[in-house]
Amino acid sequence: MEHIRIGILTSSDRASAGVYEDKSGPAIEAFLKERIKNPLEFCYLLVPDELSLIQQGLEHLCDKEGCSLVVTTGGTGPALRDVTVEATELVCQKMLPGFGEKMRAVSLQYVPTAILSRQTAGIRNQSLLINLPGKPKSIHECLEAVFSSIPYCLDLIGAPYIQSDDPSVFRPKT
Amino acid sequence: MEHIRIGILTSSDRASAGVYEDKSGPAIEAFLKERIKNPLEFCYLLVPDELSLIQQGLEHLCDKEGCSLVVTTGGTGPALRDVTVEATELVCQKMLPGFGEKMRAVSLQYVPTAILSRQTAGIRNQSLLINLPGKPKSIHECLEAVFSSIPYCLDLIGAPYIQSDDPSVFRPKT
Amino acid sequence: MEHIRIGILTSSDRASAGVYEDKSGPAIEAFLKERIKNPLEFCYLLVPDELSLIQQGLEHLCDKEGCSLVVTTGGTGPALRDVTVEATELVCQKMLPGFGEKMRAVSLQYVPTAILSRQTAGIRNQSLLINLPGKPKSIHECLEAVFSSIPYCLDLIGAPYIQSDDPSVFRPKT
Repeated sequence: MEHIRIGILTSSDRASAGVYEDKSGPAIEAFLKERIKNPLEFCYLLVPDELSLIQQGLEHLCDKEGCSLVVTTGGTGPALRDVTVEATELVCQKMLPGFGEKMRAVSLQYVPTAILSRQTAGIRNQSLLINLPGKPKSIHECLEAVFSSIPYCLDLIGAPYIQSDDPSVFRPKT
Repeated sequence: MEHIRIGILTSSDRASAGVYEDKSGPAIEAFLKERIKNPLEFCYLLVPDELSLIQQGLEHLCDKEGCSLVVTTGGTGPALRDVTVEATELVCQKMLPGFGEKMRAVSLQYVPTAILSRQTAGIRNQSLLINLPGKPKSIHECLEAVFSSIPYCLDLIGAPYIQSDDPSVFRPKT
Repeated sequence: MEHIRIGILTSSDRASAGVYEDKSGPAIEAFLKERIKNPLEFCYLLVPDELSLIQQGLEHLCDKEGCSLVVTTGGTGPALRDVTVEATELVCQKMLPGFGEKMRAVSLQYVPTAILSRQTAGIRNQSLLINLPGKPKSIHECLEAVFSSIPYCLDLIGAPYIQSDDPSVFRPKT
């Protein structure tokens, strides 16, 4: 089994200033460790809600750290300093609108304000980037909504082969 | 309770030429008056389906009139002169694709041609802009589909606090 | 009944190199022949997964061949050489996100990896362009998901009037 490198970028003015602890990053790591059998290496970045810092962080995780999967948390809402989505669009060559649609559809089962999340996903070279909201509670429901498609997506972009015994994981027969 | 200023922009060649009466604008006002308890001030604009006029109208409602919420009606379809969505994208700094997804999903329960509507929503500074279709019949179903998220969205962008006794209105506990 | 010209563009490196037969194009033709009563003329293009060739192909079908409806197959996924969606966005003046949302929602009933498809639709002058995935199996479910809106969409952009006895076809009363 190949090693998989996974980047986790938390964008939060308050968490990066030490005002509170980042709980979303560890929640993402725990979720993925439970479902992926490959040896995993996690790279963490914690940055304030600044477009250029998030953009550089994402580029670093993809290009220097060689992360095949980069998951962000925070910065998906309508507020002025919510700019993680913009940074993601800047670094990706292709956007995958189906991820945002699916995550919002699932979140709508819990809260009507799910339509305020602009979260999306996209491809940069051989990396898949996925935005998650900042609230730790939403991490699980959003990752759960899309995890079944992550291994096949990595196959299609030439990233390492993910082994999982999660029965929801789907790869079409060719 | 703070006063809330609300802009209503109707884009329609025929209504602006006096060929028929604008019924959608008043339907929007009636819907919002029923659900918002704050004192409301409405600013109306009725313009032909011209990109630059709609764009200037939206800027005027946000920047000069100080409207916290701007609702458009008309110009969301696939026809050449349907350009309200384009004007909205030009004036907004952030788009909120979840609004269009939700409104189309709800309209699909009534008509399959709901997929032809390109309606969206977005943020310009401290204003939330929402596109509605031109047909008065659709006004109610579309506003009903998203109203629950409008007060919290205004909170997030620093606009006045909306008081409503509509039980669908949702603000997450912080 | 007016003649309707329909373009079918298959983008596939392997099919265009003769490695396998294009089965998706004929599946699209069969689907449309069954549902449209007008006399139909089909124009086929089979091109490799090259952005400029797909773009030129779409322009040719719309502008030179006068196709009112152009359906593509292939090139909608996340892989590097999946560029049909990009070509479609380059040639269209208006995008219709509701088509992609609806087709993904329907495909999700069959496979969770439907969120990986970036397929969309848009308008170029008096032509409606719709992306379908490359797999022949998906052709039917995706066209079925949106066919009810195609005739009215062509009405709105000034294309010929489609006659159909498919009961799902919907035109709102004016």
